[in-house]
Amino acid sequence: MTTLPVRHAPLVLHPDRFLDPEPGTRRAARAILEATAPLPIVSPHGHVDPRLLADDAPFTDATSLIVVPDHYVHRMLYSQGVPIEALGVPTRDGTPHERDPRAAWRRFAAHVHLFRGTPTGAWLDHVLAETLQVPVRLDAASADHVYDAIGERLADAAFRPRALFTRFGIEVLATTDAATDTLAAHAALRASGWAGRVVPTFRPDAVMRIARAEWRAHHAALEALAGTPLPTYDAFLDALAARRRLFRAHGATATDHAVVTPATGHLAAGELARCYSAALAGTATPDDEARFAAHFLMDMARLSLDDGLVMQLHPGALRDTNPLVLARFGMDAGADIPVATEYTRNLLPLLQAYGNDPRLTLVVFTLDETTYARELAPLAGHWPALRLGAPWWFHDSPEGMLRFRRRTSETAGIHNTVGFTDDTRAFCSIPARHDLARRIDASWLGSLVARHQVGLDDAIEMGRLLAYDLPRRTYRFDRAGEGA
Amino acid sequence: MTTLPVRHAPLVLHPDRFLDPEPGTRRAARAILEATAPLPIVSPHGHVDPRLLADDAPFTDATSLIVVPDHYVHRMLYSQGVPIEALGVPTRDGTPHERDPRAAWRRFAAHVHLFRGTPTGAWLDHVLAETLQVPVRLDAASADHVYDAIGERLADAAFRPRALFTRFGIEVLATTDAATDTLAAHAALRASGWAGRVVPTFRPDAVMRIARAEWRAHHAALEALAGTPLPTYDAFLDALAARRRLFRAHGATATDHAVVTPATGHLAAGELARCYSAALAGTATPDDEARFAAHFLMDMARLSLDDGLVMQLHPGALRDTNPLVLARFGMDAGADIPVATEYTRNLLPLLQAYGNDPRLTLVVFTLDETTYARELAPLAGHWPALRLGAPWWFHDSPEGMLRFRRRTSETAGIHNTVGFTDDTRAFCSIPARHDLARRIDASWLGSLVARHQVGLDDAIEMGRLLAYDLPRRTYRFDRAGEGA
Amino acid sequence: MTTLPVRHAPLVLHPDRFLDPEPGTRRAARAILEATAPLPIVSPHGHVDPRLLADDAPFTDATSLIVVPDHYVHRMLYSQGVPIEALGVPTRDGTPHERDPRAAWRRFAAHVHLFRGTPTGAWLDHVLAETLQVPVRLDAASADHVYDAIGERLADAAFRPRALFTRFGIEVLATTDAATDTLAAHAALRASGWAGRVVPTFRPDAVMRIARAEWRAHHAALEALAGTPLPTYDAFLDALAARRRLFRAHGATATDHAVVTPATGHLAAGELARCYSAALAGTATPDDEARFAAHFLMDMARLSLDDGLVMQLHPGALRDTNPLVLARFGMDAGADIPVATEYTRNLLPLLQAYGNDPRLTLVVFTLDETTYARELAPLAGHWPALRLGAPWWFHDSPEGMLRFRRRTSETAGIHNTVGFTDDTRAFCSIPARHDLARRIDASWLGSLVARHQVGLDDAIEMGRLLAYDLPRRTYRFDRAGEGA
Repeated sequence: MTTLPVRHAPLVLHPDRFLDPEPGTRRAARAILEATAPLPIVSPHGHVDPRLLADDAPFTDATSLIVVPDHYVHRMLYSQGVPIEALGVPTRDGTPHERDPRAAWRRFAAHVHLFRGTPTGAWLDHVLAETLQVPVRLDAASADHVYDAIGERLADAAFRPRALFTRFGIEVLATTDAATDTLAAHAALRASGWAGRVVPTFRPDAVMRIARAEWRAHHAALEALAGTPLPTYDAFLDALAARRRLFRAHGATATDHAVVTPATGHLAAGELARCYSAALAGTATPDDEARFAAHFLMDMARLSLDDGLVMQLHPGALRDTNPLVLARFGMDAGADIPVATEYTRNLLPLLQAYGNDPRLTLVVFTLDETTYARELAPLAGHWPALRLGAPWWFHDSPEGMLRFRRRTSETAGIHNTVGFTDDTRAFCSIPARHDLARRIDASWLGSLVARHQVGLDDAIEMGRLLAYDLPRRTYRFDRAGEGA
Repeated sequence: MTTLPVRHAPLVLHPDRFLDPEPGTRRAARAILEATAPLPIVSPHGHVDPRLLADDAPFTDATSLIVVPDHYVHRMLYSQGVPIEALGVPTRDGTPHERDPRAAWRRFAAHVHLFRGTPTGAWLDHVLAETLQVPVRLDAASADHVYDAIGERLADAAFRPRALFTRFGIEVLATTDAATDTLAAHAALRASGWAGRVVPTFRPDAVMRIARAEWRAHHAALEALAGTPLPTYDAFLDALAARRRLFRAHGATATDHAVVTPATGHLAAGELARCYSAALAGTATPDDEARFAAHFLMDMARLSLDDGLVMQLHPGALRDTNPLVLARFGMDAGADIPVATEYTRNLLPLLQAYGNDPRLTLVVFTLDETTYARELAPLAGHWPALRLGAPWWFHDSPEGMLRFRRRTSETAGIHNTVGFTDDTRAFCSIPARHDLARRIDASWLGSLVARHQVGLDDAIEMGRLLAYDLPRRTYRFDRAGEGA
Repeated sequence: MTTLPVRHAPLVLHPDRFLDPEPGTRRAARAILEATAPLPIVSPHGHVDPRLLADDAPFTDATSLIVVPDHYVHRMLYSQGVPIEALGVPTRDGTPHERDPRAAWRRFAAHVHLFRGTPTGAWLDHVLAETLQVPVRLDAASADHVYDAIGERLADAAFRPRALFTRFGIEVLATTDAATDTLAAHAALRASGWAGRVVPTFRPDAVMRIARAEWRAHHAALEALAGTPLPTYDAFLDALAARRRLFRAHGATATDHAVVTPATGHLAAGELARCYSAALAGTATPDDEARFAAHFLMDMARLSLDDGLVMQLHPGALRDTNPLVLARFGMDAGADIPVATEYTRNLLPLLQAYGNDPRLTLVVFTLDETTYARELAPLAGHWPALRLGAPWWFHDSPEGMLRFRRRTSETAGIHNTVGFTDDTRAFCSIPARHDLARRIDASWLGSLVARHQVGLDDAIEMGRLLAYDLPRRTYRFDRAGEGA
């Protein structure tokens, strides 16, 4: 431990943080948390780069660890007038960016007050105090001290990715990988003999979006991997089925699909052939793409019946809505904004076709909380194939997670949900996110106990389900002998 | 009381169940509940079969009492992979169903953990411990014991329907009856000399849905009851007005109408005649049906001005969305899913025509909670004719009822709501549902007291309004000398 | 102080009213409130008539002060069957109205129980007990006593508008004024030498609504003020820019725009000219108006870049939906009902054009709470120009304000909100509304403290921001030397 200069305020993670303060609720919540806090982390859905663990190279500095990769940080500071390039984020349009990581860190530190009461603020405190063991409250005055202390930590072998993976107690970590990914990093990981379980997830969005300019490049990559031209939709689908088998051989248990609208439904054969030809000719329209995607999702569900990959659907975000930010920083830079999303009618074709089949597990996420109680809980409380994904993105926050539980559990029960998934690309924030989620669930369950709706023993069992058993079971990590 | 073997855990209904645990709130809530718990039950909207009370036959066993008729139970177990036929529910498609009620009960008991934290779980506990006086926690191990204990109770005359009606303290119970129902069961009830007040509700949905294959059969039944052909819409409407008078003569005070979209508005005469002719010819389209229904609701409101029947509108559920379940079990088997529902524009034609008229009471329900604060409370806080129905179906749960109060009361006040209605077909669950609702309202009112927003005396008065006076007044059960 | 007859119950404002009762939360909330309660009132958005302060005439009686101008009161009593004219509100259609203010007051007093648990009830108690210093609980029995006591107060010079303005601690009050308003009252106020800061707000709705019958009269008024015909859209826009400059010279810092849908987007020049010509010819359609408004908002944002006026957008209310009430009482009489509102796609054209520009501040309000977490917080947490307006109209209630904080703060932070704005036309209710808002914010912040999410010192700073600094800063009242 570094001896701290007295001028910096200590950063203390209160043992009761995020728990409802009413004494009966808090007492029950503590008992539940005591049972769930030590459980391993199952992370079936996230965006950590597998090369991080394949290479196991040390992190270099606080800025590249905490500031540069986190678009939650960029968006909040940008909304308050701080240019994203001033945070050290490289640009694509030639705009100069801050090249001094310490200067970028100071700029970040001077604005951490913006995160008061936000999950980003909570995760940051956890990463500093617990993960990096730098228990100093970050602000403009302490910026340099914290920066240097983090640097010291990162130079220590105990803070390299694999060591942290072990310290975090991660039982399994799923990454997200394009359908055309070679899975080289995953292969390298397995070849290295390291015991950590890291598996890919099959995400074929790029080859589904037939109206995009990049589609033909992705399609060509798929042809190259298939070793054959793919002149028809059937050939294209066969190639994807082969990729799915390869992903499964590398341990994958799931697919993932991002759409704006969760429309599903079969196209007539002629119409499907027309869309595919238009894609090949580079003339597919956004409307073609929408109808193609609806059909594509039907086929992905059908393939899941055979290969057992759990199907995940993430609808409802309008992507990359700020052209200036898109040109300067590329996609996923913080200007993705949710839209109202309809599930009842959109999912019906897929559910009517495959929703009664016990071989299918379809995990549906939403950014539109109005659908929790109105559509998703009633759907999940009926269809055997359907499970509700964890509160996602803008909603895996204290209030957001409480709203999810309060609005879905009474109709769907907790068994039709998947428990918590962290969905993060920030490796170091994984335990912070699971800690927060377990606290919120403990607090919610504690309130059921304090209201005499559920006994404490049952509540503890429910807590374990949410923290561990449900994600493990839903994503089929409990099935021995699957995968390679 | 049966002496319990020691191996089964006791089922105790905590006196403070569902009350907010904060001491000030709970203290006030207890005082409110003390005033509301003894009040009679007014049940102006439900689906109990009147033959149950007309025949007064004993219930036969736990499964046919609790499991077979409850689609909340079917849907949850089905969502977790239990076939509905395995619960003893008879099928229509020749699929064999479980014919041993004890085996079905064991299957149910092995899955009751799915209902933890759900209203179905809470109602079940109340039915067991209080209504049936079998205070044993149900699980796989206690299944047989509980089954037998319930069987013992049901053999006792004190557990026959009319005795329970009296024990439940039901002041009045409204059933739901098709426009073409002969009301024979209601007539038999009245003829029996029994003092319980059971009244029908006029629900003409089947004759409104002109695009359905079954429409012509319902129409023919209406012609038979009218004793005359109904070749024109005017004749059709006259026949319905006559049915309404008959319902009123049997004590009815209300009508009920289920639609997907609450669209209202007059059709031009020619267009109306065309729709009606298409219906007679069996060529009406779903679009014809939608426009016909909008007009039909206008006429139902107009008739209410004259005959004083309170008009209820239940929109927003897409019905029978699982073809496999529909074919096997028929309608209302748990695959009804809500959709987003618009009220502000849809109700305007009806409200502009009749909403200022003190003779009309229009009670509007919703499955779309987003409309509570945005549309329904502002509408009810303005139009003299409009009242907000109780939180319904998926939403008469602890959290659901709290959301309703918190989102409607500040704009509409409680006087523009109808208090609680149980909406159940499960006769034995009626007191459980009223108990839960009174507890949630007491807790909500207690929180207003603890925040010094309302004095305790006023809160007690509000509690009595919600539990008793408002449903009684809104549904006009307080008006002497009406009906037959 | 009047000596009260013993028969009337005292009206006591509890020092902890509206604070969460959980002891830890309440303790923190009290500490926060202690810091925020004494802060001056900044009221950047409201509807007080500037002549009230220009004339400084005494208020005449309780009814004309409290009942006649408050459409929240009218709508609730009307919904329960009390004619609006019976409350002393003058009619436009010849219907006789109650001319005895005491009789109208008695009618109001006999119905105050309808406001239990509503913000109107809370504001009324505050106005009586604190502002008017008549600490008697109002009901039918105390009606005359309270009426007389208020009359006594109003005769006192300490209860004239300017004296109250000073007593209320108002630092600045913005009114709302048509684009064609001469600002005579504001000029008179300034000429009077009185030190109170009262500024206009530029609201050009009437000249934007080109399909309305009244448009040509408003346009003619604009031509008269411009001293020149305005045959083209460019000339029209120049005239408006000149009006904006004049408003600024009178101290205005903001514009305000009410629309049903917040659509924005440039029209092609030919299309724009066609719409404007149609307006001049009196042939513009509602569709023309909608597209014209979308373009008009783009130009208003562009003008704000230059003149620095903060742009406010208030969408989502369907206005004057009750023809009977409209004919009898005119606009804004309580029959305005919200509709679902879409922001993500509608605001994009404006944000893509101007949202990255630090010169623009766009404050967006909503009546559709579903957009808080789904659209508005993500938008405000990204775009530098965007700020979230306070919960508005039906939503500046205890539960409504809590929902706003809970659903926006985690994604947008509080710095992307504008703090509280009272939006009232009832001058005497201003301190009541700020008091309630400060209490709710203190309670919300106190809950963050009790959950160890935020330290008490930070929470106090956040409370001051919400109560004072954010509205002052967002509406640019902190910029010296601006305006005239």
